[in-house]
Amino acid sequence: MFRVGIDLGGTNIAVGVVDENNKMLAKHSVPPLAARPWQQVATDMGDAVASASAKAGLSMADCLQIGVGAPGTCNSRTGVVSHAYNLGWDQVPICQFLQDRFHLPVKLSNDANCAALGEAVAGAAMGYQDVVLITLGTGIGSGIIIDGKIYAGMHSAGAELGHTLLVLDGEACTCGRRGCWEAYASATALIRQTRQAQSAHPESILCQTPPEQVNGRTAFDAAKAGDQAALAVVHTYARYLAAGLTNVVNALAPEMILLGGGICNQGEYLLSLLRDYVEKNCFGQKEGAIPEIRVAQLGNDAGILGAAAL
Amino acid sequence: MFRVGIDLGGTNIAVGVVDENNKMLAKHSVPPLAARPWQQVATDMGDAVASASAKAGLSMADCLQIGVGAPGTCNSRTGVVSHAYNLGWDQVPICQFLQDRFHLPVKLSNDANCAALGEAVAGAAMGYQDVVLITLGTGIGSGIIIDGKIYAGMHSAGAELGHTLLVLDGEACTCGRRGCWEAYASATALIRQTRQAQSAHPESILCQTPPEQVNGRTAFDAAKAGDQAALAVVHTYARYLAAGLTNVVNALAPEMILLGGGICNQGEYLLSLLRDYVEKNCFGQKEGAIPEIRVAQLGNDAGILGAAAL
Repeated sequence: MFRVGIDLGGTNIAVGVVDENNKMLAKHSVPPLAARPWQQVATDMGDAVASASAKAGLSMADCLQIGVGAPGTCNSRTGVVSHAYNLGWDQVPICQFLQDRFHLPVKLSNDANCAALGEAVAGAAMGYQDVVLITLGTGIGSGIIIDGKIYAGMHSAGAELGHTLLVLDGEACTCGRRGCWEAYASATALIRQTRQAQSAHPESILCQTPPEQVNGRTAFDAAKAGDQAALAVVHTYARYLAAGLTNVVNALAPEMILLGGGICNQGEYLLSLLRDYVEKNCFGQKEGAIPEIRVAQLGNDAGILGAAAL
Repeated sequence: MFRVGIDLGGTNIAVGVVDENNKMLAKHSVPPLAARPWQQVATDMGDAVASASAKAGLSMADCLQIGVGAPGTCNSRTGVVSHAYNLGWDQVPICQFLQDRFHLPVKLSNDANCAALGEAVAGAAMGYQDVVLITLGTGIGSGIIIDGKIYAGMHSAGAELGHTLLVLDGEACTCGRRGCWEAYASATALIRQTRQAQSAHPESILCQTPPEQVNGRTAFDAAKAGDQAALAVVHTYARYLAAGLTNVVNALAPEMILLGGGICNQGEYLLSLLRDYVEKNCFGQKEGAIPEIRVAQLGNDAGILGAAAL
């Protein structure tokens, strides 16, 4: 028997067929073309499920269940995507729709939660029960795994760790609050910090990059070349990131924290700064419950594998 | 069949005998006299268990299990109190000790966790599955109930919500970090804020209280009498408290947040300020996952009832 995972993203609908060992047997992707009625997108999702299972040489009769990871606020209990702004979805009963077509149980969770579950069942956190995945992108995404299962709280609205405070009344955040961790430690925030350093340090090699081309690598590349202004950006950014990780450690004491997103390509260069800060600042310091801090492994497959494991 | 709960506090050892409906049948308390070898304190705990069950008219043969709520860091898996500074305990195998005497299963958790569980099984959070209890005292204690069970993380060291940030690099905290919620919203912090207002506002009726007699009620009493400086203290304090509650909402989306500690005697006067802030600032604002925010009900019995329910 196999299971199907659907990762409904802004750029594509990715479907995978997974066996009982969480091994991906086949994948199929289609663009979502979001600016359509949701029923059309959902029909494409169903077609992609059929294509992926055909690729795997299996029929839907061999399938135990279908899982959907969707952006935005997803109510796992009701199977309804409450809000997904980038898809223009509002109160979409996606589980019922797919269930009517395939006559199989269909489960739903937020894409960040699915990615965390995927890493827990088949990636860097295999064998761990309490895991937090932090994804550094436009914002800070997060998924909490407790006792091997997604924890999402009331109305599946929890696990918004990016929207806990670093500095009360600090930088403006997209959520409407000021001072959220996301406003200091997302890739967007790093880019803003890098541009500020360009303005303040015209002598820095950071200024060789036009401001509009600054990305999450710019400061790291210049820092590695020995540029002092860039080093300061990297160290300040790492401190912001690590301060939020310390909050996660103190609040949840997970066995493992995984980091995802492009910034994590910095690997040990970044991780060693983070581990050092967490050890010095967490409750109980070195005798505290310091989790392993690693980079997520599965990339885009995490969402599919997690959806299949719902 | 009944269960026994032991709440091992700094001021007394409180033991309760509880029936299957979490009703307290009898209680017995003895002073802990902490400055003794732990075996003597543990022997007193055992004697108190025997006394409490005798008071309830029951024999230990009618008892299913014993639960212990202890201060400090408690490893629930091993049954060992890792550190409890105010008792001078270090690596104390309390469960094994009581098990050897009573030949019954003995369970262990931190006292704050037990209080949260007590409120969930028999107090203000009865019927709720995901609950956070915040106790405002010398510090900020916290207990997290997920799916009806205590969540304490790795080595049972988690749920230190008082040691998540309000202001990076802000006020010094007892944990060694700067800027923790506890340093802004504990009773200790409120007393400090009240004394600062005394210094800054010699015209305030706050100054009728000698600084050394300021407590958690001083500012509230003066604010209710219309004193402007005191009103400012109360509103600033409520804002700090509510900002941390908003973090709890965004991170965990519990169904209910309970507040304990003497400051909660302010009741609706304080709660309405907190609810208003949380509604305006949590992720998704009014459409977010806003929990009920209430005052804990059981007082000192919460720890006993929670220990019995471990």
